[in-house]
Amino acid sequence: MSSPFSAFVPDTPPTGAEPAARAGHFSTAHGTVLTPAFMPVGTQGTVKGVTPAQLEAIGPQVILGNTYHLGLRPGDELIRDLGGLHAFMGWHGPILTDSGGFQVFSLAGLRRITEEGVTFQSPFDGSSHFLSPERSMEIQRNLGSDIVMALDECPPGRLERDKLEVSMARTTRWLRRCRAFPLAGHQGLFAINQGGVHLDLRRQHLEEILALDREQPFQGFAVGGLSVGEAKDEMNELLAAFVRQLPADRPRYLMGVGTPEDLLFGIEHGVDLFDCVLPTREARHGTLLTSRGRVKIKNARHKASPEPLDPDCNCYTCRTFTRAYLHHLFRTGEMLASTLNSIHNLSYTVGLTRDARQAILACQFPDFARRTRENWNTEEP
Amino acid sequence: MSSPFSAFVPDTPPTGAEPAARAGHFSTAHGTVLTPAFMPVGTQGTVKGVTPAQLEAIGPQVILGNTYHLGLRPGDELIRDLGGLHAFMGWHGPILTDSGGFQVFSLAGLRRITEEGVTFQSPFDGSSHFLSPERSMEIQRNLGSDIVMALDECPPGRLERDKLEVSMARTTRWLRRCRAFPLAGHQGLFAINQGGVHLDLRRQHLEEILALDREQPFQGFAVGGLSVGEAKDEMNELLAAFVRQLPADRPRYLMGVGTPEDLLFGIEHGVDLFDCVLPTREARHGTLLTSRGRVKIKNARHKASPEPLDPDCNCYTCRTFTRAYLHHLFRTGEMLASTLNSIHNLSYTVGLTRDARQAILACQFPDFARRTRENWNTEEP
Repeated sequence: MSSPFSAFVPDTPPTGAEPAARAGHFSTAHGTVLTPAFMPVGTQGTVKGVTPAQLEAIGPQVILGNTYHLGLRPGDELIRDLGGLHAFMGWHGPILTDSGGFQVFSLAGLRRITEEGVTFQSPFDGSSHFLSPERSMEIQRNLGSDIVMALDECPPGRLERDKLEVSMARTTRWLRRCRAFPLAGHQGLFAINQGGVHLDLRRQHLEEILALDREQPFQGFAVGGLSVGEAKDEMNELLAAFVRQLPADRPRYLMGVGTPEDLLFGIEHGVDLFDCVLPTREARHGTLLTSRGRVKIKNARHKASPEPLDPDCNCYTCRTFTRAYLHHLFRTGEMLASTLNSIHNLSYTVGLTRDARQAILACQFPDFARRTRENWNTEEP
Repeated sequence: MSSPFSAFVPDTPPTGAEPAARAGHFSTAHGTVLTPAFMPVGTQGTVKGVTPAQLEAIGPQVILGNTYHLGLRPGDELIRDLGGLHAFMGWHGPILTDSGGFQVFSLAGLRRITEEGVTFQSPFDGSSHFLSPERSMEIQRNLGSDIVMALDECPPGRLERDKLEVSMARTTRWLRRCRAFPLAGHQGLFAINQGGVHLDLRRQHLEEILALDREQPFQGFAVGGLSVGEAKDEMNELLAAFVRQLPADRPRYLMGVGTPEDLLFGIEHGVDLFDCVLPTREARHGTLLTSRGRVKIKNARHKASPEPLDPDCNCYTCRTFTRAYLHHLFRTGEMLASTLNSIHNLSYTVGLTRDARQAILACQFPDFARRTRENWNTEEP
């Protein structure tokens, strides 16, 4: 695969005090990605509630599109014919597309899994569809994303070890098939590591991936199958031991994570990329992530507050409006509530990774992490 | 009443060929208003679906806030304490507030009308409220709008003449009480003319208003009680005969109107200001107003269209996205559909009045009106 992808280049000074947290960058055809970075999720070709112009002002390094949703509606060939997902949705920075596997395994109703792939029913019109490694690659090629995720089998959380091993082996075989599929020249392929919360299984699966990688390198490595129902402690213990074992010269992506607390923990242990619907979903439900902790904007205490949502935030919402106004919009069910709340939550989350990067570059990450955690008040600020 | 309001200053060259269509301007504390102008409606302190920044890019000369809604939620005293409606909603251009009367007469459930005012029940929590001329003025003073509308009794469309006359007389008495109320120094008061579609009643009511105006001038005159169920022909016949009889040295405001066709007709007959929820409401329902006619974006014919919504429109939506993308957003129920559609419909409606102004200034309004109507295709463009 020819690719404009650069390897991961560490920006961290060599004398850094942190053994794991790292800052770096890698290049794609649609721009350089500075890490650590949080990727907002644009499930159906839009990051819910914000325009691409608002998203640009928020400033994520890369955003995520959903292969499953876009393949069903409006269809990947239609998007290809309209110039690809970048042109279709008006976002001209880097895009990562997932493989569609997570949605097929978690959302679709009837489904049948074979070695060849998964047959599933569209929840929209009941029509039957088939997702295989090749079909996932084809959709992602049609979408024209910069980062393509391999199709993995997504086991449910807390699956028994023996079943997990069977699933992992299939994921490896599927990875080989994904890599054999000809992507577009500008696209890079990320491999996904599975193995639940079992460090030995994670290592075993990583060895299989690295065997393939030695034949022909992947452009990045993802940790999948976490944040799917296991205890937070189990996830964190696994991450603390495992992330640093991923190759240092490629980006490391922790899929589907997460909360501000999760991001900080992940960065602390060497994760470069994150994605999660949490910031926009919580925003629509009126839960706002701030430097002082979580604000539930519908609470009566904000009704007459002339204060900005987060005095440490420079986003459009915090620069322009009072808590009283945000409270009013949420209480009256105005659409603008979701938009302004989403702008803030995305700004906060993207900003957290940006600030973490600056702290790492300044060799002050442990101090930054400590102060950030101290400022997160458990009482509503 | 001391006021920074200027009189209406005609910008139309004296050799214009049009007897009625006029361009002009008047000044308020929050800026000059160039007319003709369409005022987007911000019912609950937000023009539905767009941020103030997006609204600024659309460029309306003045926007409208609702006394009834804001007085109930979050309450006018709260908005006053937070610096007034401009600061509360982040819009720093001119604001007109309605009197609350239209909503009390059309929305509220139980209500009792006396000479003193109207007692009504809040649809939100069933609590009892009282709206009188003095209370309407007090709310609008607390909101701090630039243009304050007098409280009128809003008779239902097609009310019998004798009942209409009783209602008009009360509206005149209420107007006198509104004028006696001390507004803030920067606020101007508009009187509202009633009389249904009866030209003689309209003239009779206007004489009563002008008698008050001679004692102390109003800052503008509004035509109320139209577009409330009467036949379009009846409304237009009345407007064609009546609007030019309103004083030429004050702005003329046709309340609650309307469609692009209505705007063009109103401008043709000397109206300066319009307001209507139609552009944003239709936008949310997927009906888009364009220079070629109405587009129903959910229709299958737009599914794969690489064309902009309106090739003659320079709004963010038309500059950035294809019809196929707008179709996709609407079909998948994404919030962004409402936002992008609202940006376009508001841009189109505001732009129509701006273009009409330019045409009037260039003494080419009849030609502009003819071409605009010819371009409105009855078949979906």
